[in-house]
Amino acid sequence: MYDLIIIGAGPAGLTAGIYAKRANLKVAVVESGPPGGQLVSTGHVENYPGFFKIAGADLGIEMFNQGLNLGVKYYFNEVKEIKDGRIKEVVLLDQTLKTKTIIIATGAIPRKLGLPNEEKLSGKNISWCAVCDGPLYQGKDVVVVGGGNSAVEEASYLAGIVNKITIIQNLDTLTADQIAIDNLLKHDNVKIYYESLVTAFLLKEDESFLGVEIEIKKSEKQIIEADGVFEYVGLKPSTTNFKNLAILNEYGYIKTNDKMETTLRGVYAAGDVREKQIRQVVTAANDGAIAALSALRYIETWK
Amino acid sequence: MYDLIIIGAGPAGLTAGIYAKRANLKVAVVESGPPGGQLVSTGHVENYPGFFKIAGADLGIEMFNQGLNLGVKYYFNEVKEIKDGRIKEVVLLDQTLKTKTIIIATGAIPRKLGLPNEEKLSGKNISWCAVCDGPLYQGKDVVVVGGGNSAVEEASYLAGIVNKITIIQNLDTLTADQIAIDNLLKHDNVKIYYESLVTAFLLKEDESFLGVEIEIKKSEKQIIEADGVFEYVGLKPSTTNFKNLAILNEYGYIKTNDKMETTLRGVYAAGDVREKQIRQVVTAANDGAIAALSALRYIETWK
Repeated sequence: MYDLIIIGAGPAGLTAGIYAKRANLKVAVVESGPPGGQLVSTGHVENYPGFFKIAGADLGIEMFNQGLNLGVKYYFNEVKEIKDGRIKEVVLLDQTLKTKTIIIATGAIPRKLGLPNEEKLSGKNISWCAVCDGPLYQGKDVVVVGGGNSAVEEASYLAGIVNKITIIQNLDTLTADQIAIDNLLKHDNVKIYYESLVTAFLLKEDESFLGVEIEIKKSEKQIIEADGVFEYVGLKPSTTNFKNLAILNEYGYIKTNDKMETTLRGVYAAGDVREKQIRQVVTAANDGAIAALSALRYIETWK
Repeated sequence: MYDLIIIGAGPAGLTAGIYAKRANLKVAVVESGPPGGQLVSTGHVENYPGFFKIAGADLGIEMFNQGLNLGVKYYFNEVKEIKDGRIKEVVLLDQTLKTKTIIIATGAIPRKLGLPNEEKLSGKNISWCAVCDGPLYQGKDVVVVGGGNSAVEEASYLAGIVNKITIIQNLDTLTADQIAIDNLLKHDNVKIYYESLVTAFLLKEDESFLGVEIEIKKSEKQIIEADGVFEYVGLKPSTTNFKNLAILNEYGYIKTNDKMETTLRGVYAAGDVREKQIRQVVTAANDGAIAALSALRYIETWK
């Protein structure tokens, strides 16, 4: 039986593994993709303290190796289900692991527009994180897609950095909180297209990024030249397989307290999968460290 | 006028500087010592995600340079006082800075025993953080000084890693919570000396560490051989100059919510200076990132 099974090998899960193994716990991390979580598809990270600039995938590998070196066991496998109980079961595709505690660190995935070229431009000209990538667009022009709280707040952030922002919103109004909208509209470098959709990502002849094609009110097409696009059309927590646990909020995020405890004893959540406000590499790592130490504290009481 | 003044250049303050500058805020960090805070006196860090092993001082310098490179301004100066108000004043030794927001990230300092050789052995054989340095003592013998919650909880952590622990407590009982004591006493590699004081750090002829001399019940002296000593005789937050702000708890720590907001608008706290449970490099960095983004959000509402 394991002391701790960590589900997900993004910054939260990898950090939890490091902390757990250093505390001599019998710990394993289960992940079905490459290590690093969203880092894998992040071009470069420049706001993780200690690294001036590092490729996202490389930072993921560093954290992975740090755990590997300590002796953390990794399963490249998928978690189909968690069965709660004093002894918990983590059901993989081909086997079932038993454990005293579980940390869910499966992250969240930004929804994409699903247009041609999107994959190719991802991490270069298309981003899902203004706080991460905004500074790359100092003095340049960007498009923000969406009109909810994330779109409007991140557009405000970008407005203090970039030259010009064009917001493409599908509805006839912004749906963010009024205070967020007020803050955005204080900036004079923001233009908003309502009832509009991004219909294509356009490239120049040399294959570099030109901008987006939009369709306004289901009729007029227009080309907006830009250096980058920030998409905020929703974030989807990776918790589909954990619905049975009744620890999810209405949006599918896991609610925890500041010790990363869920309402189930011995079950913790860390990183982007949590109901929280700020989702950064360093905040995910923070959660992982705290969750591992909380799990340790619980395991110490095990009789 | 500054948008943000950050007081303290440990991991929390340095991270706040990086995040603030990337958001284009006019930001300065004030620090009277070398950058890195407690990192400066930390031998090596092995639990900061992304770095397999790095000298504490080097990690501090990396974070410092990261901000410097972005254009964060640093004042090597001391903060005598903060004057709150819509526009706040940070009073230095020789000048006063005006700012819209302040992040207090002045950290906390572990109390020392004040014995000869303590300074010299610090970061080598004497530590104040089991979670940081415990894994270095796998299979070795250590002494823990103290009997409060920190001492007992960290001794429990160490008990899962080291060969033998000797606890030296000055009172005739452990003063930690009963549950923490129960967890500790489950381990059979723990011996406790009550009404005892560490009276000397002893060196071998080759100047390497031998162990400690203790005095039991004000009479008998005894030598306890050990590879390392963990001191938990109290932590002192660096908030003496901020008593006027009425944001300190009874122990001098600053109380915040999870956005790092204090009860004063535009005043935030981050890192070890906060009332919190887990004090690690990565948790301090987390706080700094969140505090800077909270300050930014507040500045956006500035009229």
